[in-house]
Amino acid sequence: MVNLNKIMKYFKHSKIPENILNRGQLVLKNYLKPIKILFEQKNVPTNPWTDEQIEFLLNVLSQMDTDKDMNASQVGEREARIASPLHLKISGGFCHGVGRSGFLTAPQPKAPGGSIMYEITNYLARDIMRNFGLPNIKAAIITPVATGMSLALALTALKPNRNKNDSNTKRTVLIPRLDHNSILKSIDFVGLYPKIVEGKLFGDAVRIPIEDIESGLNENCFAIVSFTSFFPPREADDVKAISKLAERKNLVHIVVNAYGVQSIEWMRLIRSAIDAGRVDAIIQSTDKNFLTPVGGALIASPHEETIEKISRAYPGRASASPVVNFLISILSLGIEGYNKLIKKQQKNRKLLEDLLYNFAKKINERVLDIFNPVAVAMSLQNLTQKKLFELGGALYNLRVTGPRVYDPNQKTFGNCIENYPIPYIVMNAAIGSTKKDIILAVERLEKAYFQINS
Amino acid sequence: MVNLNKIMKYFKHSKIPENILNRGQLVLKNYLKPIKILFEQKNVPTNPWTDEQIEFLLNVLSQMDTDKDMNASQVGEREARIASPLHLKISGGFCHGVGRSGFLTAPQPKAPGGSIMYEITNYLARDIMRNFGLPNIKAAIITPVATGMSLALALTALKPNRNKNDSNTKRTVLIPRLDHNSILKSIDFVGLYPKIVEGKLFGDAVRIPIEDIESGLNENCFAIVSFTSFFPPREADDVKAISKLAERKNLVHIVVNAYGVQSIEWMRLIRSAIDAGRVDAIIQSTDKNFLTPVGGALIASPHEETIEKISRAYPGRASASPVVNFLISILSLGIEGYNKLIKKQQKNRKLLEDLLYNFAKKINERVLDIFNPVAVAMSLQNLTQKKLFELGGALYNLRVTGPRVYDPNQKTFGNCIENYPIPYIVMNAAIGSTKKDIILAVERLEKAYFQINS
Amino acid sequence: MVNLNKIMKYFKHSKIPENILNRGQLVLKNYLKPIKILFEQKNVPTNPWTDEQIEFLLNVLSQMDTDKDMNASQVGEREARIASPLHLKISGGFCHGVGRSGFLTAPQPKAPGGSIMYEITNYLARDIMRNFGLPNIKAAIITPVATGMSLALALTALKPNRNKNDSNTKRTVLIPRLDHNSILKSIDFVGLYPKIVEGKLFGDAVRIPIEDIESGLNENCFAIVSFTSFFPPREADDVKAISKLAERKNLVHIVVNAYGVQSIEWMRLIRSAIDAGRVDAIIQSTDKNFLTPVGGALIASPHEETIEKISRAYPGRASASPVVNFLISILSLGIEGYNKLIKKQQKNRKLLEDLLYNFAKKINERVLDIFNPVAVAMSLQNLTQKKLFELGGALYNLRVTGPRVYDPNQKTFGNCIENYPIPYIVMNAAIGSTKKDIILAVERLEKAYFQINS
Amino acid sequence: MVNLNKIMKYFKHSKIPENILNRGQLVLKNYLKPIKILFEQKNVPTNPWTDEQIEFLLNVLSQMDTDKDMNASQVGEREARIASPLHLKISGGFCHGVGRSGFLTAPQPKAPGGSIMYEITNYLARDIMRNFGLPNIKAAIITPVATGMSLALALTALKPNRNKNDSNTKRTVLIPRLDHNSILKSIDFVGLYPKIVEGKLFGDAVRIPIEDIESGLNENCFAIVSFTSFFPPREADDVKAISKLAERKNLVHIVVNAYGVQSIEWMRLIRSAIDAGRVDAIIQSTDKNFLTPVGGALIASPHEETIEKISRAYPGRASASPVVNFLISILSLGIEGYNKLIKKQQKNRKLLEDLLYNFAKKINERVLDIFNPVAVAMSLQNLTQKKLFELGGALYNLRVTGPRVYDPNQKTFGNCIENYPIPYIVMNAAIGSTKKDIILAVERLEKAYFQINS
Repeated sequence: MVNLNKIMKYFKHSKIPENILNRGQLVLKNYLKPIKILFEQKNVPTNPWTDEQIEFLLNVLSQMDTDKDMNASQVGEREARIASPLHLKISGGFCHGVGRSGFLTAPQPKAPGGSIMYEITNYLARDIMRNFGLPNIKAAIITPVATGMSLALALTALKPNRNKNDSNTKRTVLIPRLDHNSILKSIDFVGLYPKIVEGKLFGDAVRIPIEDIESGLNENCFAIVSFTSFFPPREADDVKAISKLAERKNLVHIVVNAYGVQSIEWMRLIRSAIDAGRVDAIIQSTDKNFLTPVGGALIASPHEETIEKISRAYPGRASASPVVNFLISILSLGIEGYNKLIKKQQKNRKLLEDLLYNFAKKINERVLDIFNPVAVAMSLQNLTQKKLFELGGALYNLRVTGPRVYDPNQKTFGNCIENYPIPYIVMNAAIGSTKKDIILAVERLEKAYFQINS
Repeated sequence: MVNLNKIMKYFKHSKIPENILNRGQLVLKNYLKPIKILFEQKNVPTNPWTDEQIEFLLNVLSQMDTDKDMNASQVGEREARIASPLHLKISGGFCHGVGRSGFLTAPQPKAPGGSIMYEITNYLARDIMRNFGLPNIKAAIITPVATGMSLALALTALKPNRNKNDSNTKRTVLIPRLDHNSILKSIDFVGLYPKIVEGKLFGDAVRIPIEDIESGLNENCFAIVSFTSFFPPREADDVKAISKLAERKNLVHIVVNAYGVQSIEWMRLIRSAIDAGRVDAIIQSTDKNFLTPVGGALIASPHEETIEKISRAYPGRASASPVVNFLISILSLGIEGYNKLIKKQQKNRKLLEDLLYNFAKKINERVLDIFNPVAVAMSLQNLTQKKLFELGGALYNLRVTGPRVYDPNQKTFGNCIENYPIPYIVMNAAIGSTKKDIILAVERLEKAYFQINS
Repeated sequence: MVNLNKIMKYFKHSKIPENILNRGQLVLKNYLKPIKILFEQKNVPTNPWTDEQIEFLLNVLSQMDTDKDMNASQVGEREARIASPLHLKISGGFCHGVGRSGFLTAPQPKAPGGSIMYEITNYLARDIMRNFGLPNIKAAIITPVATGMSLALALTALKPNRNKNDSNTKRTVLIPRLDHNSILKSIDFVGLYPKIVEGKLFGDAVRIPIEDIESGLNENCFAIVSFTSFFPPREADDVKAISKLAERKNLVHIVVNAYGVQSIEWMRLIRSAIDAGRVDAIIQSTDKNFLTPVGGALIASPHEETIEKISRAYPGRASASPVVNFLISILSLGIEGYNKLIKKQQKNRKLLEDLLYNFAKKINERVLDIFNPVAVAMSLQNLTQKKLFELGGALYNLRVTGPRVYDPNQKTFGNCIENYPIPYIVMNAAIGSTKKDIILAVERLEKAYFQINS
Repeated sequence: MVNLNKIMKYFKHSKIPENILNRGQLVLKNYLKPIKILFEQKNVPTNPWTDEQIEFLLNVLSQMDTDKDMNASQVGEREARIASPLHLKISGGFCHGVGRSGFLTAPQPKAPGGSIMYEITNYLARDIMRNFGLPNIKAAIITPVATGMSLALALTALKPNRNKNDSNTKRTVLIPRLDHNSILKSIDFVGLYPKIVEGKLFGDAVRIPIEDIESGLNENCFAIVSFTSFFPPREADDVKAISKLAERKNLVHIVVNAYGVQSIEWMRLIRSAIDAGRVDAIIQSTDKNFLTPVGGALIASPHEETIEKISRAYPGRASASPVVNFLISILSLGIEGYNKLIKKQQKNRKLLEDLLYNFAKKINERVLDIFNPVAVAMSLQNLTQKKLFELGGALYNLRVTGPRVYDPNQKTFGNCIENYPIPYIVMNAAIGSTKKDIILAVERLEKAYFQINS
């Protein structure tokens, strides 16, 4: 097999002078060096890789899988045969998917390259979490399903074994109210039952007091799910207090940190929760935190065996694409790139608040006093129901995507509380958004506002 | 916006003569025509598309999603932002994934193109099933998860609603024994319980008699899962009889037809089962039947509302890649291409049997008498335990992937029965395999056999 | 730098068992092996490479060029900077082009990889010619310009040095009449003058007798250009006799073998010419012989220093794309693939003649008796001028591309003779054409014929 | 054929609500709009296109060529058949190349799309020149060969017709000395003869006085070539004075503006020359000015028929790649992008001078007083011959590409004068270079300088 480190030697007697050959070898070496470092250290690179380098890695690894073996004779019913070369793109070349007999991280004999790829990716998942707020993490896995299904996966993996007499088995999950359908569906999906603790108003903010959570517990509860990132008026849970409660009551505790990696504050909450009590798993979206297409999640845990358990609970195999996407993101960003993104997010969040503050003053409204490092909410008390509805439509037509206009008289799901007193609009300055997004959004909000009021 | 049908007109006054322009327009028209037909008819094309045509379609549709809108201002926390253009490849351009609030086929306001893509794909899924054996299907969906998780999805979607007093709720699924971990994990994953009916020996074949199935039912059973494709010695279930039973007993009946679309015989079983009794859903692997990378499944049903229910049970969003992969396969094959694949499979299956028959005669073994349109099993009664083990290793080293060597004295999981009398080897001539695969596999088997015996 | 031969070692202590790692390394080794062989032997591979392998080679080599060096500081006016990553595709990654100070094959200090790429390509050019008819070739070069400009390049490189008194310098090139504009433009382009020797009729065929060529010579002639491949009624020149003449008269002799590599007979002509007399250079199109896009030529010579001279005559640098295209073709075909193409061409040529023969009989015409291993001509004596003209149009509308309908009363350029007696149509069964092309073409000819006669 | 403007209508009765479909159509419209504007206006777009938009355009156009026509029957010897799909990348899909019978811009009946592509590209070539300094241009062409060969093409196209008695024909080209091999080879290539007018010293600068040029003329001269961009100590020619001379003496006047488009000053020279006297053609490199890979040139002229003549002089066909490359660059930059590049170049040039000035002071050297908007020269009078040589090597090892160290005692070619008094180093801050390039280059120069002096 060709040794790329020594291409030079094959052309020693060519017309190309040695110094030119040496230079070529040197440039190639620089190009390939990050791959070596990745293989050796299995850490997130400091600096971003180029797309060419990423593709080179994916290519080399996927060329290790047996579907690429032209000398093989393949007589299984599943051999990663493909109908079109286009499939290689969609899968990053990893046609065998991930998982084996329902054990996600089990090495696949037919996919040595795919197995290496997944192993490295999971190391990078752990490393990025350690670098950005959770040094107390022991293991992580990129699941090939998004946040909702990953919660289902974690819950079902960590549920208590069945009693002889199933009727006594604990099957209830305590949920500080969070109005997101996927969460509720996750719980139902795996045959569990939610017990929801209602939100309460604290000034503008909606929180679920730890006392209410504790008193909400009953004998059927085996787990609590707590939440960090969500949109106002709901604030993050007191994850630390919940972790202590979980420890005391011997409950599984899963933190849904959907898009929380971008925020130092939310990550600090989780870090202290791990240190103070019991956290079994922390689940985050790969698309919302790491700018991949939708489809994967990162589950991290302070306990290696918890990740192992979760990995073993998956029924069957799964697409490798969400895993490849995370790998691409992490390599194309590096520690440095992710740091930059976080810095930019912080600036944009500040800008969003400032702009909304100014606009609010102009129209006699106010920015709500709710802690949220990503989103900002502004009251819309001076708008009628009809106008609130029109405002949403006007923003859509002005191509502002993502804002939420709430009229709690109309729709309470989303407020995380019954009887939230005032209508409001929420906008996000999430990771990956641009200054232009923020400025345009507030400008257009202003335009829409005056439009519906004229 | 440019009208591709009339590029000509923009160059009327150019130096390029009209007849040349007309010819260019004509050639372009031919290229784009299949897209029009697809949009109009929403059926599997008769003839294969070229990769260029498929990419054109994916490109046009994905350019409708709002993440491509350069005039938008994006202030949501999930806007399909990506860290690298490589992500566009892995997702086919559909960065928003599929699903909305846990409703897989719900149109996504931020992904008009992705929504169209998914809708078309599901029509093609239905159409391909109708064309290849199941005209009595009413709806189908490509799920973004593989067969195992799709079974979980179907079971949980079709489980009975919770009683007030949960202890009485039916949560048991009857399973004619099929030794595949993913199946068992699926059931556990969604908090259900399997009740397994043991296999029995009928000559060489292992079957689960309908009487045993019926007598295996108890009051907690709400569903039966039946199976078509599996490897010998297990034969397909009597799906028709089971469907009648299901109807009579008011049970959900799901057919796992993992890689059965390739077989006219297996499909005929299912067709008659639908006509004769109750079949709720039929689940098949996209990779094993349609030559995609691992990661998706096709669930078909004679009832539109069943597919709707299944679609609504998914918690959250999911990767679009498995859906895109199926679309690519179907367009790159067309009805004609799939027909060819099936014909070739039949020839290869025949060839495999003939070659194994000859080899068996030579070494005093025999081809087992088990009905299976994909796989063939040959006895290995003359090998000791040690040699059976060595044979597996030797085949691996000779790069034969996929054969299964079973010594029922060692490992009973896989036989679907306790005490299967004889050791054997199974090989597949599955869809997509080549004549060369089959010939080489038997040659190498022969080589390995004599090697371990020398 | 990562050693791809030993990826295994980096994962020794991973969860992936050694036998799986070994298998992956083995499959990767197979994939990369052809590159090693190419580097070592610098010959056309026996078997075709996959597109992935070709891209891997292009990628590795182009990553040696200094424009890829992220640690360089580039302060020249030409540093292969590019405006868009799309340029990397169009150039195969080789942005520096080929050539240095007007010396095509000179190594470029800023493009070590590009230099290696060009050197290998030229070895492959020599090797393919040696394998397919010209073992007596010593060197070859892929020129970054097509056949016409390559003739200009060869002529100007081999022209005699200027006399002190320029008026006496020989500047005339003898041309056995060949009605192709590019040839005449080539000669004019480099400031030379053609002297054309007229064709004569031999039965149906047009030839230029060697005696006429000899008597056409005058004192200003320094070169003869001879021709192999052309369309009927012109036959190939008696290249052997011309080579003897060239030797005797001390004339430069260039053979334009435009699309002749595909024909054993034409190549045999040239081979014997080299052995018998003087041949300086043989020029062939890369697109017509090796199925590349238009833009390159292969110049071969029995004398290494002739290729060196030609290489040194080029003014400035040139696009690498034509070179890369040839490399891609040769690697994607291999000796085996090219052999198959030639076999298929021979069959198609036979088929074309048979079909035209049958059709000719039906309409009272005949296949002309002209030696040509690629094209076939059929008389059209029964058509009026008007109908001959209509026939061309009808064929165009029926999407038959490439046929030539000649009415020598209307247009004599193309016949290579004045007063060719009869109208005719010429069709080619050239390398790369398909059986379907041939069958359809004759069917459509028939259709067109009856259409204009109805 | 599908009408992309109305995809909506095909999904009217789908489950996707109309407002979502409308949004998708709107986003797609935005994406395709620039193509419509390009087709209508045939001008350089104001704003950059995305790579996706460029690829869409190339795809649509190349799908008009007959090699893509699956219903054609192709019986020519040149049908743009390709051995591998990789060829489509290298050619941008335009496999027929450009040109027909040696007329570069002639529409090709088999390549309607390629013909449109070339026509548009040439309009953009004209437009970019008009926008950046030469409003008095009437036509332009992208030649598929680089600057040197393009000069050959222009000279041979514009040479006087042959006299009956060839000995009297004018074949000499007057050249104000410019030490670039390609220029001299160009002239020799097309059978012409240079007459070189020596440079003279004016302070630090080397210029060729207009009087010397005039007195250098003789009766055999039919053309003058003048120069703008070159590296110090040679300054640009007095193009305006030369154009007046050319008009007075009835001489062809070609301006070689190799990398001059980036400079407002050099362009102003040419503009005034066109207004004041005779300029036949202006030749510029596509790679040095427009950041394409090496291989094309842009020839502009104040006279449409001159471009036509040049287009008709090319012998045969040529690769489309250089043309596609220019198109890609122009669309990916737009007027705005090119403006930014120019601004950045100006800043970098200033920075380079400042840094060299400071360094020169430190080592008792000086920046030479030579007008050049791209390059800066610094004296190296304190270095011995040996050290001058070592300095070049040291810079190469430090990966500074592009600097020129001259010791006029050793090598006079490059100085454009005999006996240039002092050694010097030249560095460029050319278009496309980065601030980092400049800073690093001077830092490394400093390092190298002290290294060889230690």
